[in-house]
Amino acid sequence: MQVEKIAVVGATGYSGEELVRLLLRHPGVELACVTSRQYAGKALGEVYPKFRGLKYDALPVTASEASAVVASGARIVFLALPHGVASEFAAPLLDAGLRVIDLSADFRLKDKAVYKEFYGKEHPAPGLLSKSVYGLPELYREKIAAANLVASPGCYPTSIILPLVPLLKAGLIDPQSIVVSSMSGVSGAGRKVEADYLFVECNESVRPYGLPKHRHLSEIEQELGNAAGGKVTISFTPHLIPVNRGILTTIYAAPARGVAPEKISEAMGQSYKNEPFVRLLGEGLYPDIKNVAYTNFIDIAWRHDPRTGRLVLMSAIDNLIKGASGQAVQSMNLMCGLPETLGL
Amino acid sequence: MQVEKIAVVGATGYSGEELVRLLLRHPGVELACVTSRQYAGKALGEVYPKFRGLKYDALPVTASEASAVVASGARIVFLALPHGVASEFAAPLLDAGLRVIDLSADFRLKDKAVYKEFYGKEHPAPGLLSKSVYGLPELYREKIAAANLVASPGCYPTSIILPLVPLLKAGLIDPQSIVVSSMSGVSGAGRKVEADYLFVECNESVRPYGLPKHRHLSEIEQELGNAAGGKVTISFTPHLIPVNRGILTTIYAAPARGVAPEKISEAMGQSYKNEPFVRLLGEGLYPDIKNVAYTNFIDIAWRHDPRTGRLVLMSAIDNLIKGASGQAVQSMNLMCGLPETLGL
Amino acid sequence: MQVEKIAVVGATGYSGEELVRLLLRHPGVELACVTSRQYAGKALGEVYPKFRGLKYDALPVTASEASAVVASGARIVFLALPHGVASEFAAPLLDAGLRVIDLSADFRLKDKAVYKEFYGKEHPAPGLLSKSVYGLPELYREKIAAANLVASPGCYPTSIILPLVPLLKAGLIDPQSIVVSSMSGVSGAGRKVEADYLFVECNESVRPYGLPKHRHLSEIEQELGNAAGGKVTISFTPHLIPVNRGILTTIYAAPARGVAPEKISEAMGQSYKNEPFVRLLGEGLYPDIKNVAYTNFIDIAWRHDPRTGRLVLMSAIDNLIKGASGQAVQSMNLMCGLPETLGL
Amino acid sequence: MQVEKIAVVGATGYSGEELVRLLLRHPGVELACVTSRQYAGKALGEVYPKFRGLKYDALPVTASEASAVVASGARIVFLALPHGVASEFAAPLLDAGLRVIDLSADFRLKDKAVYKEFYGKEHPAPGLLSKSVYGLPELYREKIAAANLVASPGCYPTSIILPLVPLLKAGLIDPQSIVVSSMSGVSGAGRKVEADYLFVECNESVRPYGLPKHRHLSEIEQELGNAAGGKVTISFTPHLIPVNRGILTTIYAAPARGVAPEKISEAMGQSYKNEPFVRLLGEGLYPDIKNVAYTNFIDIAWRHDPRTGRLVLMSAIDNLIKGASGQAVQSMNLMCGLPETLGL
Repeated sequence: MQVEKIAVVGATGYSGEELVRLLLRHPGVELACVTSRQYAGKALGEVYPKFRGLKYDALPVTASEASAVVASGARIVFLALPHGVASEFAAPLLDAGLRVIDLSADFRLKDKAVYKEFYGKEHPAPGLLSKSVYGLPELYREKIAAANLVASPGCYPTSIILPLVPLLKAGLIDPQSIVVSSMSGVSGAGRKVEADYLFVECNESVRPYGLPKHRHLSEIEQELGNAAGGKVTISFTPHLIPVNRGILTTIYAAPARGVAPEKISEAMGQSYKNEPFVRLLGEGLYPDIKNVAYTNFIDIAWRHDPRTGRLVLMSAIDNLIKGASGQAVQSMNLMCGLPETLGL
Repeated sequence: MQVEKIAVVGATGYSGEELVRLLLRHPGVELACVTSRQYAGKALGEVYPKFRGLKYDALPVTASEASAVVASGARIVFLALPHGVASEFAAPLLDAGLRVIDLSADFRLKDKAVYKEFYGKEHPAPGLLSKSVYGLPELYREKIAAANLVASPGCYPTSIILPLVPLLKAGLIDPQSIVVSSMSGVSGAGRKVEADYLFVECNESVRPYGLPKHRHLSEIEQELGNAAGGKVTISFTPHLIPVNRGILTTIYAAPARGVAPEKISEAMGQSYKNEPFVRLLGEGLYPDIKNVAYTNFIDIAWRHDPRTGRLVLMSAIDNLIKGASGQAVQSMNLMCGLPETLGL
Repeated sequence: MQVEKIAVVGATGYSGEELVRLLLRHPGVELACVTSRQYAGKALGEVYPKFRGLKYDALPVTASEASAVVASGARIVFLALPHGVASEFAAPLLDAGLRVIDLSADFRLKDKAVYKEFYGKEHPAPGLLSKSVYGLPELYREKIAAANLVASPGCYPTSIILPLVPLLKAGLIDPQSIVVSSMSGVSGAGRKVEADYLFVECNESVRPYGLPKHRHLSEIEQELGNAAGGKVTISFTPHLIPVNRGILTTIYAAPARGVAPEKISEAMGQSYKNEPFVRLLGEGLYPDIKNVAYTNFIDIAWRHDPRTGRLVLMSAIDNLIKGASGQAVQSMNLMCGLPETLGL
Repeated sequence: MQVEKIAVVGATGYSGEELVRLLLRHPGVELACVTSRQYAGKALGEVYPKFRGLKYDALPVTASEASAVVASGARIVFLALPHGVASEFAAPLLDAGLRVIDLSADFRLKDKAVYKEFYGKEHPAPGLLSKSVYGLPELYREKIAAANLVASPGCYPTSIILPLVPLLKAGLIDPQSIVVSSMSGVSGAGRKVEADYLFVECNESVRPYGLPKHRHLSEIEQELGNAAGGKVTISFTPHLIPVNRGILTTIYAAPARGVAPEKISEAMGQSYKNEPFVRLLGEGLYPDIKNVAYTNFIDIAWRHDPRTGRLVLMSAIDNLIKGASGQAVQSMNLMCGLPETLGL
């Protein structure tokens, strides 16, 4: 198998670091270029003490410039940059013929008006929105394989969209009945040096935030709407919990009129039984962050509550892997024609 | 002020320990008797290293027998015993003229059929159910003051009932629309020596459990039904999170038809503005377990979501204090005619 | 008893916050003035959500200026300011006749040369060094009671000095054999908004730091030297561990020639048997941060190792209470003629 | 390369689970047999929810009997059994021609009298002691490669022996001056269902234990003695800290007379510069559990303290990997003639 050259732009956040960690062990690619505004000039092993002694620990980190990426010979570029910054980088890289996997929110929305509504400004590169593919392999496998621009999903969206899409597609639940509570580990906030994320402020603390209109709602509702074949609006409350990694999501929905509970299990099984990274939990099992940490799995369980008639769906992912870098590598594998699970 | 003699039966669980800690510093009572099956014969300071050097550290722990409690001269007895065991103790103590504050679930339900449905067996002392008062001072202050048997509420119920009752009483929300996600610290499971509660199994873990019919639902729905004036059935998912103490509850409900969002704030304010342990959070503030830990406060916030029309209510308590021992002391203060906040 | 007016200057760090929390519940004092550079103009309850609903939650926070403190009528002032800043404040307050309890390191050293060696600059108010009393009540009770300027000790020093002083005074250990490993909770670093103290960087992490010459060594060796009657130089390694509060210190020392192990226990007992905040642990017990958290106790244990001949001493304190604010309140009680344990 | 068949006996502890996790991803071996007394009859994926969806998740767990292991065709067997139980298993497996890597303490000591002193009973298979090789590849690489019985070291010993051996071999430190403080994550205690290891008892807790004569001292002093060419007796205090994984060890030692500090660095560099799993940290860097978690690395740093003349050595490992299962796999690679780092 031919080894593809890869670049990572913006490797200093938690997602970028995790991406590098995954690529260091990936047998099908060569890490040709790693960039960072903050650490340019240092070796990879100096920037990340945990990468010392591993392959590439002497790789020099370069400045975050598109020209440096192109010069490295990389054919696929991961952008692990803040929202808004990624779109500036994507255009010159695409023009130079590189393929881009963007981990930011910049290319996830198809409708620039929705972008403006949720991000509070005009989209910086609206022409690219129609060219990007939403990087959820379980939904868009073929398109991702052929794409030049992949918009890798956010962590909350992954944990919410995957449990719901099979049910919405099959018309088994009422799209307007969806209520979601998610609990995220602190790395989900990124490596932000703010008082809110200090150890003492997060440890022995649990708190909701960002109500009622978290930015991730835009991509969640876009994808749920695609599945339902119409507009979907949901309630969503994110919570910050004192673990490093992981998202646990609990979803409530009313079955559509006349739908027997066993149809839910059938639809889940049909959609996901052959998916390498989706694990459907049987009776008596609940998703738990610790069972998916450091893996690319999403664990999904569901229960029908005969008392209320509601369905409860639960999922767990590692926000840095299936919720970010692992999913991006899964897309990369598809784009390179490699086995989808390689290195994951 | 006259100092009341107090007993604590079953002081080895987390609630019992916390109760002793509160009573040690309470200026209005004398701890006359502490019992424990496991530690009878030891001094209090030997059983709990953290109580050495404090008042009563030499108090001998006696066996858990009603006669010993009566002999101690205690006038008020806290029962911090497992569910099912408490009811056996209550009868002889009440017969002997003592007043009982029970922290278990044994006397919380008014309907013995509901008890059987949720606890899977006949109630052991059904004759006492009509005599007990549900020990939530914000709802039943006068009745508690006069009661001989107080059934102190559970931790999840406290965090759910207090935010919802003012809205149900005023008819502001649709009782059948209520969906609740709660996150509990590990002490909520009690001091159970089971693999599920080992450090390594809980740390870096988040998991739902007990779906779809947690036992606490019975008392929650009883009290919500009382407020609504009719049967209320809700969805409730508890989650275990890696903190020692605290419950964070997030509640979703649809406003009743035609209810303007500002009515919610009015009803909350009217119900709770003078309550010493209820803090209503203003704009921009969210409840956080760390702000109520080691206190008897419940912090409550709410948001109306114009996108979905739903109301989101959030609350935080210390499960061992406002969710158990602090609330029981609050009831004791009422029963003794002491200032309600004394020692809390 | 007469209620003393008190001021807290610099209430935004963890020590300042804890000090306010203790003073809110202290029955013998009135909090007349709280200052903060950052939050001047807000009410106390706005600055600290956890203080809402408590006494003084409407107290306006004033700017950190000596004149405001004097104007408030406070007789005793706590300085909870960064090192170097405190000394600027102390002089005008002392001149105005107020008594000062300083929680910084500014007045802990008697020798300005040692200050310069460890803090890297000239002492800003060397004239005050001879007037200050090192605020460790177990060693300097009478001097503190009479002092106008108390230099309240640091958290590491408290956990190290108290176990060692009785043994050094009695000549029972070799002063040059002392080796100390301490483990501190993250609040020990203060509320510093730096990447090193982010939740994700501290959780699931343990690390030494500050070797080989931590600043606290200067006051530790000063006090050990006073006890030994000569210069003492020790090895000291601090470690950062993922708990909010607490210091656990383990000390190794060689008994002086010919000293029988039982002499150690005798000396400890004689020194501390009547100390209200020192708990000497008997056989089979070890200090544990969780047993002293939220208290002003120091727990001390020791073992003689016949294999090596060395003595191992272990202590635990809450770094924010006995290691900072509680100890300062203990000194305040002494200065006001109040019972030493009042409010603690 | 030929794929070796492997068995794991006793896969239900944390070390056994971690071993299975490593072997699942190891490209050079086939997991032919996994045994467990508790879970015999279940599939591997049922026993460990985190292994569902991975290779071998349908592998049936067999009862822990030597005959079943032999019948599986495994050539190398890992014993992840409690101390004392492993030795019973080893003999029949060795007799049947299998090679054994034992993760317990049963074969680590060469002297059965030392075993009796530290473990309190006669060694159950003293004849095997002379045949076993201490499985620390950095010290015994060639012997391990040829061994039929490897006694894989404990977690504390690995973190202490590796930093000290180069210095003792070169005579650079005084062997009688060694003092060690270690901090271990809770998984180091094994999956013991005891109250001491409950989440609430470990979280926000730090405590020493097992003084003054921890069992691991026996193997530590054996190996240090071998390096020093004479008996070595050290002081050692283990501490339990609230992290899942990892050991941080801090060692104090006096340089031998006349040894210049730079000799230390030379000796370390010469011993370890080509070791794939030893990382020597340069100036300004400290070991941190989070940098070695989930890896087979040991990070080592040292500082000379001119004030006391003492040397401070610090190391960090993942107790379940370099301190247990990873190290055992490293030995397995040597025994199979595979690259030493394969799968690690």
